[in-house]
Amino acid sequence: MTDDLREAARQAADAATGHLAAVPGGPVWRPVAGSDVEWLTRQPLPAVGRPLAELLGDVDRHVLPYPMGNGHPRFFGWVNSPPSAAGVVVAPLAAAMNPSCAGGEHAGVLLERTAVRWLAELAGFPHRPAGGLLTSGASMATVVALAAARQRAVPDVRETGLSGHPPLALYLSEEGHSCLRKAAELLGLGSRHIRTVPVDDAFRMDTAALRRLVVADREAGVRPLFVAASTGTVNTGAVDPLVDVAEVAREHGLWFHIDGAYGALGVLADECRPAYAGLELADSLVLDPHKWLGVPVDCGCVLFRDPSGAREAFSLVPPYLRDDDAGELGWFSEYGPEQTRPFRALRVWATIAHLGGDGVAGLVRHTTRLARVLAAMIEDSADFDLLAPVVTSVVAFRHRPTGLDSAAVETLNEAIPAAVQRRGRAFLTGTRLRGAAALRACVLHPDTTEADLSVLLEEIRAVS
Amino acid sequence: MTDDLREAARQAADAATGHLAAVPGGPVWRPVAGSDVEWLTRQPLPAVGRPLAELLGDVDRHVLPYPMGNGHPRFFGWVNSPPSAAGVVVAPLAAAMNPSCAGGEHAGVLLERTAVRWLAELAGFPHRPAGGLLTSGASMATVVALAAARQRAVPDVRETGLSGHPPLALYLSEEGHSCLRKAAELLGLGSRHIRTVPVDDAFRMDTAALRRLVVADREAGVRPLFVAASTGTVNTGAVDPLVDVAEVAREHGLWFHIDGAYGALGVLADECRPAYAGLELADSLVLDPHKWLGVPVDCGCVLFRDPSGAREAFSLVPPYLRDDDAGELGWFSEYGPEQTRPFRALRVWATIAHLGGDGVAGLVRHTTRLARVLAAMIEDSADFDLLAPVVTSVVAFRHRPTGLDSAAVETLNEAIPAAVQRRGRAFLTGTRLRGAAALRACVLHPDTTEADLSVLLEEIRAVS
Repeated sequence: MTDDLREAARQAADAATGHLAAVPGGPVWRPVAGSDVEWLTRQPLPAVGRPLAELLGDVDRHVLPYPMGNGHPRFFGWVNSPPSAAGVVVAPLAAAMNPSCAGGEHAGVLLERTAVRWLAELAGFPHRPAGGLLTSGASMATVVALAAARQRAVPDVRETGLSGHPPLALYLSEEGHSCLRKAAELLGLGSRHIRTVPVDDAFRMDTAALRRLVVADREAGVRPLFVAASTGTVNTGAVDPLVDVAEVAREHGLWFHIDGAYGALGVLADECRPAYAGLELADSLVLDPHKWLGVPVDCGCVLFRDPSGAREAFSLVPPYLRDDDAGELGWFSEYGPEQTRPFRALRVWATIAHLGGDGVAGLVRHTTRLARVLAAMIEDSADFDLLAPVVTSVVAFRHRPTGLDSAAVETLNEAIPAAVQRRGRAFLTGTRLRGAAALRACVLHPDTTEADLSVLLEEIRAVS
Repeated sequence: MTDDLREAARQAADAATGHLAAVPGGPVWRPVAGSDVEWLTRQPLPAVGRPLAELLGDVDRHVLPYPMGNGHPRFFGWVNSPPSAAGVVVAPLAAAMNPSCAGGEHAGVLLERTAVRWLAELAGFPHRPAGGLLTSGASMATVVALAAARQRAVPDVRETGLSGHPPLALYLSEEGHSCLRKAAELLGLGSRHIRTVPVDDAFRMDTAALRRLVVADREAGVRPLFVAASTGTVNTGAVDPLVDVAEVAREHGLWFHIDGAYGALGVLADECRPAYAGLELADSLVLDPHKWLGVPVDCGCVLFRDPSGAREAFSLVPPYLRDDDAGELGWFSEYGPEQTRPFRALRVWATIAHLGGDGVAGLVRHTTRLARVLAAMIEDSADFDLLAPVVTSVVAFRHRPTGLDSAAVETLNEAIPAAVQRRGRAFLTGTRLRGAAALRACVLHPDTTEADLSVLLEEIRAVS
């Protein structure tokens, strides 16, 4: 059995690295063949088990041929990265140790302290006495941050619930991520109490409008709770004016949150860094190691200027019983909803240790530079319009072949992403900007080249 | 680079399987050496990267020696399983594909449909037209279930929040898991509105008391929302009287939830099955594939009789836009807070396909039988007391050497778990039952033997 297991693990290791090596030469994405849809979705529950080698053969035939596409250097959709080599390599080690990182004294828990600290240092977020924890992704990290904010504003909320309390208002940019709305709804705050802050020409939060909304709420007797700025919005990669947002938050006692899920690490590139001034003023910062850093999903992170608020929001350990054996910060499970917590830290540690700080910065610089190259190619092309300045590594644009009226341009740009995806040479997604259909490309892959950008524009022209 | 990567992946595969092979011969748990605490927690952020082979050497020296202990056949603490061989083997494949299983057409999403259906079939939960999804664990699965219940009771809660609504009451057994309280607090329902239902002599929910609490709330104008029964409590492995709980829920319009995180699969053992009658009546069932089934963490699952409630609670897609390309059930991200979702299904599929339904049942039968053997050993020993009937694979007991008064017995049993852990020959945790210190052993490991149970009792005697 042990020999079989070692053999199967090596077979899987070879299949994993073989997959990584083969991805760039294959299609970015392909529709799943009907017979494989059948296999993937309709297998009956087996009565009898099968050897691992046979299962790996099945994976080879029916699973590996149908990736999402995000391992490919010409995948420009959403914000989904290729996995870091180190993250893939250490995956079976975390699984073989299989700890719960709720707390206690073992390697998984201790290494998470390092992983969180390294992420804070990379992002330039003050980490003394800040704390934080790894989560399944930014959505859960945002829930944790918002719960900490709610706790600070309503210290008895855990006991009383929200039914007896006046409403609390949240301020989200119209370009903010939907996870903020989801978190507010989950926590019972109500989307009715979300104020949508308009953006300026560069899709950055209009802080004068933010201030007016906050003042209006205060005058109406509504309590302002929480403002979320973004360092790298999904649609255009815009970075909100953090210093100004911090100032409004300070004036009015709001919790200042930064959604850096995609973009926090943009601070590592010289051309981006100035936009990140003020990041260090946030009460909470969310960033996803499974985005720009390429840690295999799932891996989000929430960092706190003062982590005690999160502990007050989640800990089931009475204060007089805390700190017994677990050091000053206690158990990770006291800071969020998860009890059993996986060994995410090994993937984060391995990814950063393999690349080094220089390597991480190099990845960010490479991809932000490529986004600027793509923007220049678009501006130099008569049939493409750049729709937003490039700040991080997202490029928002539109195809506008000569001779089409605006309705036809709209229809065309709505249809382009799916048509490009189907051809399998590049993968692009669409969005809406100022009410109109737009194309957006997010560059995240360390192996993407300028030639790949040319292929993307060729493919768009080919389907138009 | 590709050769290096393949070599590193094989090296990691060998280290992972070598770790699995070495675990039974080593200590269950050992304190982390001071120099390794330093290494694990204080490494400076590296400026320069290092080769994978060197990192794997570090893991070998500083990480693998300090597991949580749950891979060892004499780990009886909490409810943390050893990892399934298949789950370890496929780990790098999921990482190498690295999809987000939010939705879309790729293998990860499609295979999750099979994984969820297989889990429902194993647990005997009706899966037509039920749906469900994989989560990071039972805590998040419970949040999803409670959000669906809240949504059914207050259809405008997402928009209005809870501040304008009357309180909603929850009914949790005093032996219920803390994740239920955490979920209620997170959702803004307030722990003040949690009614703690007492238990009978066998630590099962007293349904007459449940009915009285519900009736009293209704008479007082409080709206009953949610009752959670358990199939396998943490302290004693008790299974609540599901048919009776379902009856109270039906009478009073409560959402009937079952926490089967640890114990749902107990239904697969003949001697346990009768206690599970009524499981099929639940509105929602939570079970953790990362518990009894041994899928490497993280992996929880929530199943719904009618999944549309969860979709109403979380989907950001307006109903008129749903079902475009994603089939009847839509995207997984419409059913919970996570947007980017990892390829958990591969580990679940591989674990079940490797064991087969027979193998899963065999694992459950083996461990439930061993729990009964341990209970018999305890009952046959003059110096041990069995504290609860054994229903699943948890044994609650107490050491009572002759000549000790009750205060000394209390002090002794409080001290035993840590003392046993430190010796490294077995791992046991403690709890409190009816206000007194108790020992509890949970049997989950396929390789645990009767001899291991004898070692456990010897170790307790040795530290006493």
